[in-house]
Parts: sequence; structure tokens; C-alpha cells
Amino acid sequence: MRQKWGMIATWRMASEGVTLGSEILKNGGKCQDALEEAVKFVEDYPFYKSVGYGGLPNEECEVELDAAFMDGKTLSIGAVASIKDYKNPISIARKLSKDRYNIFLVGAGAESYAHKNGFVRQNMLTERARKTWELRVKEIQEKNLSPYDGHDTVCMIALDEERDMAVATSTSGLFMKKKGRVGDSPVSGSGFYVDNEIGGAAATGLGEDIMKGCLSYEVVQRMKKGEHPMEAAQNAVSEFSEVLKKRRGKAGEISIVAMNNKGEWGIGTNVEFTFCVGTESENPKVYIATPDEDEKIKIEIASDEYMRAYKERIQRGI
Amino acid sequence: MRQKWGMIATWRMASEGVTLGSEILKNGGKCQDALEEAVKFVEDYPFYKSVGYGGLPNEECEVELDAAFMDGKTLSIGAVASIKDYKNPISIARKLSKDRYNIFLVGAGAESYAHKNGFVRQNMLTERARKTWELRVKEIQEKNLSPYDGHDTVCMIALDEERDMAVATSTSGLFMKKKGRVGDSPVSGSGFYVDNEIGGAAATGLGEDIMKGCLSYEVVQRMKKGEHPMEAAQNAVSEFSEVLKKRRGKAGEISIVAMNNKGEWGIGTNVEFTFCVGTESENPKVYIATPDEDEKIKIEIASDEYMRAYKERIQRGI
Repeated sequence: MRQKWGMIATWRMASEGVTLGSEILKNGGKCQDALEEAVKFVEDYPFYKSVGYGGLPNEECEVELDAAFMDGKTLSIGAVASIKDYKNPISIARKLSKDRYNIFLVGAGAESYAHKNGFVRQNMLTERARKTWELRVKEIQEKNLSPYDGHDTVCMIALDEERDMAVATSTSGLFMKKKGRVGDSPVSGSGFYVDNEIGGAAATGLGEDIMKGCLSYEVVQRMKKGEHPMEAAQNAVSEFSEVLKKRRGKAGEISIVAMNNKGEWGIGTNVEFTFCVGTESENPKVYIATPDEDEKIKIEIASDEYMRAYKERIQRGI
Repeated sequence: MRQKWGMIATWRMASEGVTLGSEILKNGGKCQDALEEAVKFVEDYPFYKSVGYGGLPNEECEVELDAAFMDGKTLSIGAVASIKDYKNPISIARKLSKDRYNIFLVGAGAESYAHKNGFVRQNMLTERARKTWELRVKEIQEKNLSPYDGHDTVCMIALDEERDMAVATSTSGLFMKKKGRVGDSPVSGSGFYVDNEIGGAAATGLGEDIMKGCLSYEVVQRMKKGEHPMEAAQNAVSEFSEVLKKRRGKAGEISIVAMNNKGEWGIGTNVEFTFCVGTESENPKVYIATPDEDEKIKIEIASDEYMRAYKERIQRGI
């Protein structure tokens, strides 16, 4: 069924944002505004530990953030990477997308741009994130672990009543990453892509592997050939996971959300994955996707019990 | 004709590098080594003003460099962006490509990595580049110009006797760019892409527009469907230039080089463009591509006169 408007986003943490964004879209608002407001909520919420305020720091205990914004009508892109201590990276990315030159800024240059353009400064390292970092450092030393664990990006795609589409991503990246590390989230075609004439896709997981397959662009091209978003996203993820295993011996975690310009949606994943959807015909809700042994994916609505346990878990004392 | 080995690269400035790289490939060397040696030559040569030493600085008169390396067998990628004062960014990118995590580093983080891994420090701002910058600042003020002019990346693709392929890019980016600006050159799928089972492609021009179309990945996907590299590169550039004009009113300068895993090569461009090719059956030479009014592209070997005039021009006093 063709939807007047719609929104899909990665992970349970997008739930409140998708509810907010859906209200904007339902009332005839623009996809760009719905996305910015929705992502800002996730960035601001201190208990979401892989995006914005409260995001987990890099190996030097600095919170370095990546974000991107793309407009499906003009194909305009704005992105920041490795930016420290600004409240809403997504708003900086959106502003950059309005320019013709210098649309992707990193590090000190991104901070200088944000400063000159009046964006809000904030120390993005919470006490909770610092404690989590300290415990992890200790655990890595004691158990001789690989430091890298956890890398959930919030990605959102929106379609509005005027048939415009946009996509947004925001993340603190790989937990314990090296200083200056950039993943797929601010990288066009890998972390995100959207075209009003087709639809959009966005990715979360091990950015290093997602960039090897330009998976968001790939999913949009599959939808261009007529594939349903579910087919496009699932096939792209499972086929590329096989390529990675064949060429490299293993595939990192990869999950993708997709929506076409009719508001039909889909996801692909090679790992248990939660996501949120709201459309004209469907109140915002959280789904859980679980790939079985044959890489068939089972999708269920998250139970009230799941939602309670999640909330309890993310706020638990450290 | 199937070539035992081959190499294609963007711009006249790649000429000596391609000659060097071709010698390595002809003697049974690896594509990765041929590329690194070839790109290092371009980075080191002080009169090539958009790559490495002698590259033009950003708006704050700092030389910030971007580079990437991709291996077609493993799909491994390494990239740096916005890195200052290291002699050979391509060697840092190649080293990063050997890791599983933290393969794309920017700014101070990239510099810290390079320092810890023993890469050679060098002040990359030449007296000549500083003078060019000063004259440009004056000209912009006096004539009220847009500051952005010039953005030539050296991109090289190589195929070796063992049928392995790789791609490398290196650039100082858009002249007068904002501090921290990243273009397409270190961005997988936009600035470069290669897959041993198909071939490789790499782009130069206005990175901000190239990223809107993920053009290197697009060209490789067209070759995957059986298109000759010439057809794939020309169609991708001309079709996407039309999309940009339709959606945004104008298209930036875009040029692409491509080579498939048989050593067949092609280029696409929407502007006058020079490039270099060396293969088993063709001694290294420079070509000039000129799109006519119907966007048909005329390709000619650069004359001795052109080559003399070029050399004279790049070394002329400022």
C-alpha cells in the first residue's frame, strides 16, 4: 500500500525519535525537519550510549562524533566526522548540506565551522560513559580482549506528503576506536543514500566492512531495478556477508534499513537487530529481526516485556 | 586484447609514476607495490600542485592531504583525510588497509597514527605553494571571486600478472578549501573502488558532486554487467552530469578512469581531461580527452609539443 508518509530507523533507541518524527510527518511537515528533530532526540538522550551526549568515547576517552544528512530531491549531502563537544552533530550536517563546497568536514575544521556558525557547545562525555570506558579498559587489560565492541549508529529515513525523502545518521562510532577513526556513517553510499525517484537506505554495524560494499547505494540501486525494500536490503546484506567471508574469512555485523518512495520498507541484517517504523497506516513501533541459520530473517513486534527490560537495562547502575 | 598487466591514472602529472609502475608490473611485480611507488613519485614531486609536497593549501594556508588505498582481492581499504605534514599519505593509507578496525583516520588522529608508526614528517607547504596561495587570496578579494578553483586528484588503478588489482588516490583537495574539508578521494565508492572479480574505477573533479553519485562504485557495477570500461565510465559520467543539472541546476567537473580485470581501460569526463595508460601492449603514454558539444569524447595522444608546454608551464616562476 502506498503510504502518504513514513519513517524507518535503526535500533530500539530510535523509538521516541520516530514517534516525534511521525507526528511531524502526519501533520504535513517536511521529511528534513522530521529527521532532524528525531535524531536530535536520540543525540540528546543520555542513556543511548552510541550516539551524541552519553556516547561512548574513543581509546583516549574523548567522545568523537560522526553524522550525515542527505536530501533525496537535490542529492545534497552534509557530513561531519571526528567532531568533539558539539551538542547536535546532525544539525551541523544538515546545515552543511545546503552548501555547494566543503560539505564534509572533519576534526578541528568541523569544530571551527560549528563555532563560527553558532552551534551549541557541550561536553559530550557523561560520567556514566567515562565509567563504562574505565571498566572496559580494565577488562581489556585483564582478559587480553580485542578492544572493539559496540558500534550502533542511529540511521533514519523519512518520506513526506510531498513525496520528498531524506536520510540522516549519527553515531559516536566504534567503542574504543582510535582517535580520528571514521566509520561508514558520514560516508555517502556506505552509511546512507537517498534519491526521491527511488528511495533511501542506511546502515549500521562494522563500518569498516560496510564501506567495502557501499551497501546503502547498493540497496538503493536494487530498489531502482524494482526490488521491494525488504528483498533489496536482505539480499544485499546476505550476499555481501558471503563475499566478505569468502574473501576475508569473516564478515562483520551489518544491518540496513530501507524505504522506497511509496513508503514500503524493509531491513536486512546478519545479526539480531531492532528497528522502528511509523507510517500513515502503522503507528510507530519497535521490531526485532532475528536471522536464523539459513539467514532467513524472522521479524516480530517487540513485546511490552522486551521494552521494559530494555529501559531497565540501559539505565542500570554501572 | 587481454593484457598481462596494466595501469591507468588521472592527469598528466601521473606520467612519470605510471612509467615507474609499469616497469614494476612488467617485471612481475605486485599491483600494490606499483601503485605505492607511482603515487609516491607524484606526492614527492614539488611542481605537481594538487598532490602531496607542493600541494596547494586550504583557506588557512595549511596543506591538508587525503589519500586512499584499496585491494581488489580482499576489498581491504585504508584511508586518511585532512592529514598535515607527512611525506607520503599513500603509504599511510596502504598500511591502514591491512587492519580490520580503524582503517579510515582523519586529522589529529591520523597524524598520531602516522607518528606512532614511524612515517616520515615533512613540512608539505612549499614556498611556491605559499606564493600561489597569497596571490589567490589577493585576487579573490580584488575581483570578488568564489575562492574554489582547482581540485586534481591523482588516482591510479593497476592490474598485475597474477590478476590482482588495486587502486590508490592522493590529493591536497579543493584549493582554498575550508579547514577539515574532505572530498571524494578517501571515500570508498565515490573516489575509488576495485574488485578483482570485475575491475576498478577512480574519480577526480568536484568531490562534493562525485559523492552524490557514488561514481566509482557505479562504474564498477556497470562493468560487472558486462559493459566495457569506456562505455561504463562515459555513460556513468554523462548520465550523472545530467541528473545533477536537472536536480541542482549545474554539474561540477567530473572525470573517471576505469580498468577491468582483463586490462581493458576507459575514461569518462565532462571536461577536458588528461590521463596516462601503460599496459603489456602499450608503452606508457599521456592522452588528452575532450568532450564535444554532444558529450562525445575525443581521445588523442598528447603531442610532444603539449608535453613540453606543460612542463614549462608547471615550473614557470610565480
